[in-house]
Amino acid sequence: MWTQALVSNLGGLGFDGEFHLVNPRGGEMLGRPVAREIPEGVDAAYVMVGTERAPEVLEECGRRGVASAVLLTAGFKEMGQEGAILEKRLVERARELGIGLLGPNCLGFVNYHRRLAAYGLLVVPPLLAGGVALVSQSGAMLLHFHRMAQARGIGLAATVSIGNEGMLTAADFFEAFIDDPRVKVIGALLEGIRDAAGFLRASERALAAGKPLVVFKVGHTEAGRRSISAHTGSLAGEDEVLDAVFRRHGVVRVRSLEELVETCALLAHAGWPAGSRTAVLTTSGGACGIVSDLVEGTGIEMPDFPENVKRRLAALLPVFGTPQNPMDTTGVVVDQPALLAACLDAVNEEGGYQAFFINSDPPREPGTNPSRVEERFASLAAAVARLPFAAVAQTSAVDLTDYARETLRGHGLHLCNGLTLGLRALDGAIAYSRMRARMRRAEAPRERAAPELVAGRSGALSESDSKRLLELYGVVGPEEWLAADAEEAAAAAESLGFPVVVKVHSAEIAHKAAAGGVRLRLTEREAVRQAFEEVLEAARRAHPSAVIDGALISRDVRDARAELILGAKRDPMFGPVVLVGAGGVFVEAVRDVALRLAPVDEEEALEMLDELRVPVAGDRGAAARALVGVGELALDLGERLVALDVNPLFVLERGVVAADALVVLS
Amino acid sequence: MWTQALVSNLGGLGFDGEFHLVNPRGGEMLGRPVAREIPEGVDAAYVMVGTERAPEVLEECGRRGVASAVLLTAGFKEMGQEGAILEKRLVERARELGIGLLGPNCLGFVNYHRRLAAYGLLVVPPLLAGGVALVSQSGAMLLHFHRMAQARGIGLAATVSIGNEGMLTAADFFEAFIDDPRVKVIGALLEGIRDAAGFLRASERALAAGKPLVVFKVGHTEAGRRSISAHTGSLAGEDEVLDAVFRRHGVVRVRSLEELVETCALLAHAGWPAGSRTAVLTTSGGACGIVSDLVEGTGIEMPDFPENVKRRLAALLPVFGTPQNPMDTTGVVVDQPALLAACLDAVNEEGGYQAFFINSDPPREPGTNPSRVEERFASLAAAVARLPFAAVAQTSAVDLTDYARETLRGHGLHLCNGLTLGLRALDGAIAYSRMRARMRRAEAPRERAAPELVAGRSGALSESDSKRLLELYGVVGPEEWLAADAEEAAAAAESLGFPVVVKVHSAEIAHKAAAGGVRLRLTEREAVRQAFEEVLEAARRAHPSAVIDGALISRDVRDARAELILGAKRDPMFGPVVLVGAGGVFVEAVRDVALRLAPVDEEEALEMLDELRVPVAGDRGAAARALVGVGELALDLGERLVALDVNPLFVLERGVVAADALVVLS
Repeated sequence: MWTQALVSNLGGLGFDGEFHLVNPRGGEMLGRPVAREIPEGVDAAYVMVGTERAPEVLEECGRRGVASAVLLTAGFKEMGQEGAILEKRLVERARELGIGLLGPNCLGFVNYHRRLAAYGLLVVPPLLAGGVALVSQSGAMLLHFHRMAQARGIGLAATVSIGNEGMLTAADFFEAFIDDPRVKVIGALLEGIRDAAGFLRASERALAAGKPLVVFKVGHTEAGRRSISAHTGSLAGEDEVLDAVFRRHGVVRVRSLEELVETCALLAHAGWPAGSRTAVLTTSGGACGIVSDLVEGTGIEMPDFPENVKRRLAALLPVFGTPQNPMDTTGVVVDQPALLAACLDAVNEEGGYQAFFINSDPPREPGTNPSRVEERFASLAAAVARLPFAAVAQTSAVDLTDYARETLRGHGLHLCNGLTLGLRALDGAIAYSRMRARMRRAEAPRERAAPELVAGRSGALSESDSKRLLELYGVVGPEEWLAADAEEAAAAAESLGFPVVVKVHSAEIAHKAAAGGVRLRLTEREAVRQAFEEVLEAARRAHPSAVIDGALISRDVRDARAELILGAKRDPMFGPVVLVGAGGVFVEAVRDVALRLAPVDEEEALEMLDELRVPVAGDRGAAARALVGVGELALDLGERLVALDVNPLFVLERGVVAADALVVLS
Repeated sequence: MWTQALVSNLGGLGFDGEFHLVNPRGGEMLGRPVAREIPEGVDAAYVMVGTERAPEVLEECGRRGVASAVLLTAGFKEMGQEGAILEKRLVERARELGIGLLGPNCLGFVNYHRRLAAYGLLVVPPLLAGGVALVSQSGAMLLHFHRMAQARGIGLAATVSIGNEGMLTAADFFEAFIDDPRVKVIGALLEGIRDAAGFLRASERALAAGKPLVVFKVGHTEAGRRSISAHTGSLAGEDEVLDAVFRRHGVVRVRSLEELVETCALLAHAGWPAGSRTAVLTTSGGACGIVSDLVEGTGIEMPDFPENVKRRLAALLPVFGTPQNPMDTTGVVVDQPALLAACLDAVNEEGGYQAFFINSDPPREPGTNPSRVEERFASLAAAVARLPFAAVAQTSAVDLTDYARETLRGHGLHLCNGLTLGLRALDGAIAYSRMRARMRRAEAPRERAAPELVAGRSGALSESDSKRLLELYGVVGPEEWLAADAEEAAAAAESLGFPVVVKVHSAEIAHKAAAGGVRLRLTEREAVRQAFEEVLEAARRAHPSAVIDGALISRDVRDARAELILGAKRDPMFGPVVLVGAGGVFVEAVRDVALRLAPVDEEEALEMLDELRVPVAGDRGAAARALVGVGELALDLGERLVALDVNPLFVLERGVVAADALVVLS
C-alpha cells in the first residue's frame, strides 16, 4: 500500500526530479524497473524496509552519498527501551555518515512548491502552493492537512511528518521554515515537545521574524504531573505552564485540527491586525446574532460605530437596515454588490477600527450570468484591499466549490471556513498581534548565583529559613519571634502586640495547619502560652519523628485588603515559572491563577494581577514587586528550585506581608 | 431575485403540486403566465408584496379559501412600535379568515419529503430527505442548513424560517414536528424565545416523546439584564437561567451552527447511548491524542479497557499496536478492513461500554478496485450495527464526496464531520441521555399561596422580616435580638453569649456592610455598646433618610465548615429559579454557582452542591434542605418575588445557619 501510494505521489503530481525503486531482488514493480542497489547521484532516500534491515540500508545510503533519508520504518523509540537504543545507534551512525534523517516512524513530507510528495499515503491533486508550512508528529495528519487545504483553498508550502524526531526535530523544521522566504506561517500538531530548548529558540526567532507559529498541542506528558509538597506544584500544571511559555514566546495556541489550519491560513493571507477593535459586517440578522455570541470570552472587541459612521451608514442602508456593530447589511447586498463596499469604506474612513470581520457567501457557481458574479467577487476584493486588516468568512463550514476556490484565488481573496472558525482565527491573529506588541528585546543574561543561604540544603526549608530567603528578594514577612518555650512565646506576644498567631516551627512539617500546628487571633498572654503547648503537642502527634524547633510568634494581620498566593516552580522542560493566585481556602478549589515564565517585570506582574477573577484590593504595586522578587529568586535558584509558596501574601492598604512561606529545594 | 429563486425552487426540485404566479398586472414572467388574481383551489400562498399591500392580499387569500400563507414582507414588528401595531392587526385578521400565517419577515420553508421549497433563496439539489427538522428565526440560515446537510450527507425533514413569529411560533413548529412520524430530531437557531410557555410545553412533550430538541440560542434579551439589589440578580444571568431551563426540560444546548447540524444528525441517525462510558477506536496515533484532548471538560467518560479486553485486542493488533482506550488500530486497517470489526467486537462483547466513538476515513472515490472499497464500507457498517451506540467520525471537517455520501447512505452509515464536531455531537447525545434518565413524571401542581407575612408588602424586606419568611420554609437563622439602644444591645449579647455580631437593621439598607453597618467578632459587653453606636452612626451617614430600627445582635458563627450563598429570583420568561454558590468575598468574583428552575428536591439540591468547584464541607444534607426550602418559597411567592439572597448560609458540622437574608418583592 505504502509503495503504491509513494510511487503514485512521486510520479503523478508534477515533480520534475527523477526517482528510482530499489530492492535487492530487482525485477519490476508497478510497471517500473527496480534497481538492485541505490544508483549514483541520488539526493534523498525514502526507506521502508523492516526494522532489522534499516542499519544496512543506511550504510548503503552513506556509500552512495545520499544526503538525506526519510525512515518510514517503525519499531524504535515508540516501542520502549530496546527500540530507543536501536534508534540512538542508528541516528549516531547517520550523523557519522553525514545523512540528515527524518523519522524513524514517520510518513515523510510534501513540498508543495516542488510538487514533491515523499509521503506514504496517496496525495490526490490539486496541490495548492502557498505560504503555510505544517508539521505533525502523527504522519496520517498530513493527509488531513492536505484535504482541508484543498477544501478551503489554502496554499501550503510544505507538510512534514516528524515521527520519533530521532535526529531532525520539530524545532529544526521551524528553523528551516523561518529561513524559507516562501513560508509565511508555521503550524504544528504536537503530542509532546521533545526538544524544549530548540523549541524556545525557534519560537523566539519566529516571533522576531514575524512568522507566526501556531500550535495545537494534544495529550499530556508525564513529567508535568509530579506531585510536590508546595501548592504551586499542582496549581501550575503542564497545561498552564505551556500557556505561559507560548505567551512569552509568541506562539498562538489553538484547540482543534480545524482551528490550526484556519488560523494559519488567515495569518498567511491577511497577516495580523494592529489591535483588537473590530467592525463586523454580515449579510443576515442571524449571522449578527451568531457573531455576538461567539465573540464572548475572546480577545475580539466589537465597540459600536461612532455617530458619524452611523449617519453615513444610515444613508447607505435600505430603510429596514440598522447601522450598528455587528451590522447586517441586509439581503439586498446580493443584488447590490457595491453596497457592501460602500459600507466598509464608511466604517473604515471614520471608525478607527483595526480589524474587519466580514461575513460573505460568494456564489458557488457562475450561474446564468457569470459576468455579474465576477463583478461581485471583484467588488468584494477591491473593498477588502482598502482595509487595514480583514477576515472574510462564509457563514457555515462547507467546502468551497472548485469554481469558488479558483475565482477567489484569482481575486486574491481568502475565505474563512464559517463564522465559528473564522472568529477563532481572528482571535488567534489578535493574540499574535498582542504578543508582537509586547515582544521585548532579549535581556543580556546576567550571572545567576543561588544565595549563600541555600548552600548545602535540600528538601523543604523551615518557615523562617524560607522567609529569610525571600527577604533577600524584597518579599518581607511580619515581625516574628521563634519561641522555644511557652514563656518565651508569651513574652514575644507582649512585645509584638496582640492579636498574634502561633505556628509550630519545623522544616519537616510542610503543612502546619493540617497538623494542628497553627492558632490564630490570640488576644492575651495566657492564651498564647496555652496555644504554644497545644500546637507543639498536636504537631508531635501528627509527626512523631519530626525535629521541632519551637513555635513562631507573629502579629496577626487583621487589616488585609486581599489575600494572595505567590509561587514558583521549576518546570522540567521550560525552567522556572512564577504564579499568583487567589489565596485562602480557594487556592485549590477555584484555581484562580495567572502564570508566567520567570522573570517578570513589574508591568507584567500587574498584568497578572489583572488576570485574576478575584479583584485584588490594596497596594497592588507592592504585590507586583513581591511577584517580581519571587521570579528573581526562582531564576537564581536555577535547578535547585523544586517549588516555593508564599501563602498567604496579605495585601494591605500600604505594603504587603508574606505571612507564611515554604521553599522546597532539590 | 426572490421571485426567480422561488419559481426555480417550486418548479425545479420535483414538487408534485401545481403553483401559479399572481399579480394584478397579469402578463408573463420568467416564461410563465401570471394570473391577475388567486385561482380557485389554492392551498397556500407565498406573499411577497410591499408592506402596505399585505392586508389586501390577505383579504384576497381569505376570499379564495387559501388555508395558509407565507409572508415574506418586512416592515412590521422588527421596525418598532408602529410596525408592531400593523403586524398585530394583520395577524388578528388572518385568524378571523382562518389563515395560518408564517412570518411576516420570513423567507419561508422547505419540506424535504414533499420536495417543496416555498423559500426565497435558490435551493440547489440534491435534496436529502430524512429525520432532522430545523427551525430558524433568521431566514438566510435555511440555505446554510441545506448546504451543510448536503455536504455531510444528512437527511432533512424540513427547514422553517419563522421570522417575526406573528402567529406561528417556534413552539408551534416543535409541536407539529413532534407529531410528524418522519421527524426524529428537532433543531433550532433562536435569537430569542418569544413564547416561553409554549416553548416549555413543547420541550416537555418532545422529551417525553423521545424526540431530542437541540437549540443554538444566540444574542441576548434585554429582560434578563435588569439590575436588582440582591446578588442573585446578577449571578443568575440570562444565560445561566437558560441552562437551567434547558436542563430541566431536556433541551440539548449547542454553541455553533456546525454543532447544531452535527448534533441533530447524530441523534437522528444513532439515537443516544445508555450512558457515558465510551470506547474510542481510531486509525492513527494523532487522532488518539486529539480525542484525549477534546474529551476534557465534556461529559464523555473514557475508562481504559478491562484486562480481558486488552488481552483479546493484543492478539488481534499488529506488534506495534497498543490495546488501550483511546486505541489506535494502526494504519494496517486500511489493508485489513476486518481488523477494525474484530476489535470493535472484542471491546463490545467484554468491555461493557455504552458508547463507541470510531474514527474512520472511508474512501472518497471508488478508485481502481471498487469492489474492495465496497467491502470496506460493508465491513464497517456490519461492525457498527452490532454496537449498542456508535458515532463514526472522519478525522477532519471536510465535505463528503458525492460518491462517499451515496455509498454511506447505501450502507446506512452516517459520518460525523471531523473529530472536533463528532465529539461535540457525542457529548450532546450523552447529555440528552442523562436528561432522559432524569425525566420525572410531572408532579401534580399544588395550590400555591404566598405566606401571609408578605401581604401588602413590596420592595426589600428588612433582615429580620426576610429571615422570618425563610423560617416558614425551614431555613433558620441564628438566635438574635433586635436592640433599640446600646444598653439593650449589650444585654442581648450577654444573654446570647460572646462573640456576637452587630448589624444595623433597616428595610431601606440592603447592603449593610457597604454602609459600615456590620461589626463582627465582638467579645465583650463594652465593645458591643460601642459597636451599636458606631454602626448606627455609619448607617445614618451613608443613608441619611433611611428609617433605622436599631441593630440586630446575633451570635457570631465561628465554626462554619463552609460558607454558601443561596438565592432565588423570578426570571421574566421562565419563572422562579433557585441558586447556590460559593459564599463570602468570592460571590461576585468567582461566580461559582449552580442553578435550577424551582422547585428542586433534596436529591437535585445535593447534585447542585456537587457542581460547585468549591468543596462544600459540613452538613450537606441540611444545606440541601435549605435549598429545597428556598425553592418552595420562590414558588409560593410567585409573581411577587423579585429576588432573594441567603448570604451567607453557614454550613456547620451539624445543621446550617442563615446568617443574613434579603427578600425583595415586586
